[in-house]
Amino acid sequence: MIEDTSLEVFLNELASKTPTPGGGSAAAIMGGMGAALVAMVCNLTINKKAYEAVDAEMRDILQRAEVLREQLTGMMRQDIEAFDRVMSAYGLPRETEAEKAVRSQAIQSALKDATEVPLACARASAEIIALSRVVAEKGNKNVVSDAGVAVVAAYAALKSSALSVRVNTGALSDVSFATQSITELDVILDGADTAMREIYQEVVHRL
Amino acid sequence: MIEDTSLEVFLNELASKTPTPGGGSAAAIMGGMGAALVAMVCNLTINKKAYEAVDAEMRDILQRAEVLREQLTGMMRQDIEAFDRVMSAYGLPRETEAEKAVRSQAIQSALKDATEVPLACARASAEIIALSRVVAEKGNKNVVSDAGVAVVAAYAALKSSALSVRVNTGALSDVSFATQSITELDVILDGADTAMREIYQEVVHRL
Repeated sequence: MIEDTSLEVFLNELASKTPTPGGGSAAAIMGGMGAALVAMVCNLTINKKAYEAVDAEMRDILQRAEVLREQLTGMMRQDIEAFDRVMSAYGLPRETEAEKAVRSQAIQSALKDATEVPLACARASAEIIALSRVVAEKGNKNVVSDAGVAVVAAYAALKSSALSVRVNTGALSDVSFATQSITELDVILDGADTAMREIYQEVVHRL
Repeated sequence: MIEDTSLEVFLNELASKTPTPGGGSAAAIMGGMGAALVAMVCNLTINKKAYEAVDAEMRDILQRAEVLREQLTGMMRQDIEAFDRVMSAYGLPRETEAEKAVRSQAIQSALKDATEVPLACARASAEIIALSRVVAEKGNKNVVSDAGVAVVAAYAALKSSALSVRVNTGALSDVSFATQSITELDVILDGADTAMREIYQEVVHRL
């Protein structure tokens, strides 16, 4: 399983011409790193006298960041599985009309999964950006730069998964599903650029 | 060694309250992912009839991306080593004047290394952004979204390592070294936001 792969082997596989792991898994890992760094800042803020006033808030954020990190870790694998299913579907026989129909349905069904995984990654990443704002503003000042890395990592994950959603919805024949996905994506993306810049600036300000 | 750590264990360690691995290693990995994805697009463009005109250029970019990826993989470890050296130096005894002098010198020397590693990461990441522009514009259209992930990953690596450079130069007493580092960093950062946006737009356009 991909989560058991070493960092070096993962990078080797990412660079190779094999289609997976690709950008989708990279997006999930960047989101996972964002969540992990939000958690790290919380862990280094909780139980500290100087940050007593935000202790409860940091505990809540830690709990949420850890849930998101677990989801994103799962998405590294789900992205590969969804992509492989799309590829297998494209490889189905298409000699007869019946085969063509089966193949087409298999492709469309696989593409829906391959849309839902990056959309979930985008959703989780946007939430990590929101959490990183709170830890950047209120977390332990000594590790505020880690909050800054969290926000740019989550932003990169969001922008990356947005590309996967666009690619896969582009090949969908279910226009209503595709439109709904793109509409949700646009809502998630709205304001993300500004949020990233603002949070990063707050971090630089508190360095 | 960190490069042999599994993705899941790495994320666990990143989230924990232990100071390393932290944002510096995350930056190096994001840069490494950017380099790997540039290489992936090159690998899927080389030897293709439709991309014959850019074959030589893609081979050159592949070679350079692989050198940068190797450097960035090394930086995951170097960042941890440099950070640990800073921490050890701060832990030196400071009872006598002689001890204070030794400790202060050790801290300053360690901080210089801890500045040079993220500065090298920023330099490499900026170069990956430049390479990602070429693969986004001329690489295999079928994997153009991976070029898009490459650019946002490299951008996240650049912005992350910039924070580490600022943190560590802030504690340096060698003002000339600190100023020189920040001046180089500012040159590297100049235009990075615009480049990232332009390359990402080019990717969306070619999807």
